[in-house]
Amino acid sequence: MNSLNNLTLALDVMGGDQGPSVTIPSAILAINNLPNLHLILCGNEEIITTELARLNISKHTLSQHKQLTIFPTTEVVAMDEKPAFALRTKKNSSMRKALDLVHEGKAQACVSAGNTGALFSMAHFVLKTLPGVERPALISSLPTHDDDKHVFMLDLGANVFCDSHVLYQFGVMGSVMAQQVDGIDKPRIALLNMGEEAIKGSDHIKQAALELNDNKEINYIGFIEGSDIFANKADVIVCDGFVGNVALKTCEGVARLVYEKSKTLFNQSILVKLLSFIVKPSLKKLFKSMNPDQYNGASLIGLRGIVVKSHGNANSRAFYSAIIEAVKEVERQVPEKIKNSLEQGLSPQ
Amino acid sequence: MNSLNNLTLALDVMGGDQGPSVTIPSAILAINNLPNLHLILCGNEEIITTELARLNISKHTLSQHKQLTIFPTTEVVAMDEKPAFALRTKKNSSMRKALDLVHEGKAQACVSAGNTGALFSMAHFVLKTLPGVERPALISSLPTHDDDKHVFMLDLGANVFCDSHVLYQFGVMGSVMAQQVDGIDKPRIALLNMGEEAIKGSDHIKQAALELNDNKEINYIGFIEGSDIFANKADVIVCDGFVGNVALKTCEGVARLVYEKSKTLFNQSILVKLLSFIVKPSLKKLFKSMNPDQYNGASLIGLRGIVVKSHGNANSRAFYSAIIEAVKEVERQVPEKIKNSLEQGLSPQ
Repeated sequence: MNSLNNLTLALDVMGGDQGPSVTIPSAILAINNLPNLHLILCGNEEIITTELARLNISKHTLSQHKQLTIFPTTEVVAMDEKPAFALRTKKNSSMRKALDLVHEGKAQACVSAGNTGALFSMAHFVLKTLPGVERPALISSLPTHDDDKHVFMLDLGANVFCDSHVLYQFGVMGSVMAQQVDGIDKPRIALLNMGEEAIKGSDHIKQAALELNDNKEINYIGFIEGSDIFANKADVIVCDGFVGNVALKTCEGVARLVYEKSKTLFNQSILVKLLSFIVKPSLKKLFKSMNPDQYNGASLIGLRGIVVKSHGNANSRAFYSAIIEAVKEVERQVPEKIKNSLEQGLSPQ
Repeated sequence: MNSLNNLTLALDVMGGDQGPSVTIPSAILAINNLPNLHLILCGNEEIITTELARLNISKHTLSQHKQLTIFPTTEVVAMDEKPAFALRTKKNSSMRKALDLVHEGKAQACVSAGNTGALFSMAHFVLKTLPGVERPALISSLPTHDDDKHVFMLDLGANVFCDSHVLYQFGVMGSVMAQQVDGIDKPRIALLNMGEEAIKGSDHIKQAALELNDNKEINYIGFIEGSDIFANKADVIVCDGFVGNVALKTCEGVARLVYEKSKTLFNQSILVKLLSFIVKPSLKKLFKSMNPDQYNGASLIGLRGIVVKSHGNANSRAFYSAIIEAVKEVERQVPEKIKNSLEQGLSPQ
């Protein structure tokens, strides 16, 4: 299953605002770049074959293709569908089948750009949490002032409220991600709080701080404020899903606001307009990086399987990044490492 | 007390990172612009007179000055002092005395750039909450995509956790602020949540939504996400102090990140460097507006008196804005209006 020479991912190709017109080109790009990657495309067979034909992969070629398989499904989870409804009724959906394939050991990870809530509910139901993990968490990376460094943040919205032990577990899980995916030896773990002082914040955050501090395998560095999320003071920032979701979406909101306002700024004179042509592409890229799940994908960790969520509004590049993120997590065996770390304290590798 | 011809504010001139060198010039600017304003400068008499002399106000002029009085105090609350310690031991501090003057009816509002936590604790202790108000809240305004509109947000950090009824009261208090300070007839009130759907979020947020919806005097418009804080969809956004503080500080962090990264961008060529001189000041101003309490001041509402907090790192212009904000709240009798609204449902004016 975990042989590095045989990587198999299940893609929910129907998910996302654009569906197959975005997910299929990303899949082709991924197999072209990674010759040992095998992708199972879960979705409407007719739509998939049409899309593949557009990309010069005929039905005949496909039947002999070593890296691509179609897994035909009949249903699609709508982007605005209620998670509980999707979980109950969409058992033949592309999303559900992609998760089932991971559960059955036929794929090592699932990638979807579909309905976030439905993906969480289904993934939790189908894959179950790792032994000892109370709640799965949504984790993604954000940029920092240092171009070469990013910071992992979790939970970004999988759980509304998290008690102290759940926050502690998120700290351990985040530490494993930073170690395995980024190769950081002793990742700096911080708790997001209202202030840096130990007296600040709610009781469950103070308790989580004590628990993290007690685990000698964890490099817990203390509280961090919202203003320092991007300051490269920590490698992993832990918070509950409500706070993480608000912080992440606030980033997106600020980036959009600054971008809109700077457009007005750049229209003030011919000279400035000229400048804007030169810097606008870089500026746009910068603002877009403020919306990290759109660009790197966000992972649902703590489950007995790897699930990477690409933004609903993802383009081909973003969905491709999510596939690459899933490959990385498979290669580094992230779920196993999380299980070990929670069982034994963080083992070095 | 509330005569518009006799406005008296008590200033904690010792507070803030810069202290009197920032607060005194702001005070002079304010009395010059508002001939009916009387300011009581609470702080070290020697430092104040020296600072005033530097601004050409001699001891003799001062003794006859109709708009300025010194209230000599002997202690200062340090910026990093623990709130409980300050409350217990700093009874002769400039901050405490400024609040006492409001409590005694000798001033109509207090303005401070001092230690936020200490100011909250002292204000809560000295002034007490209005009848029916469970918790005071920190409120400030943020920019929106529409240059002419801003959005009030509360609580920004006075309370770690708020139950549904406290959130409901914040909605009513915010509505009064938007009505009285901004003259909006039916302010749009929203609750900050993880998603716009009614099924999302914690139980106490859902319950607060029901309570706000039941008050027919409140124009409750539903949930809003972090990405829409600046979208001019609401006039008032309600959340608990932890979430509000993280969101506010995240704005500051993103603004700083974008500013730093755009500086690198602007250094990419001589031409761009040259052109950047034209837009940089506007860009800087824009980024700074992302740190709203630094520029407008934040008000502690729900108390039997008006307290405006200027940012610790405020410059003269920012501290001046906080004085003006306090004047506005005195003129519009915000505390009385909040009391009435909570007692009777929102009255039109």
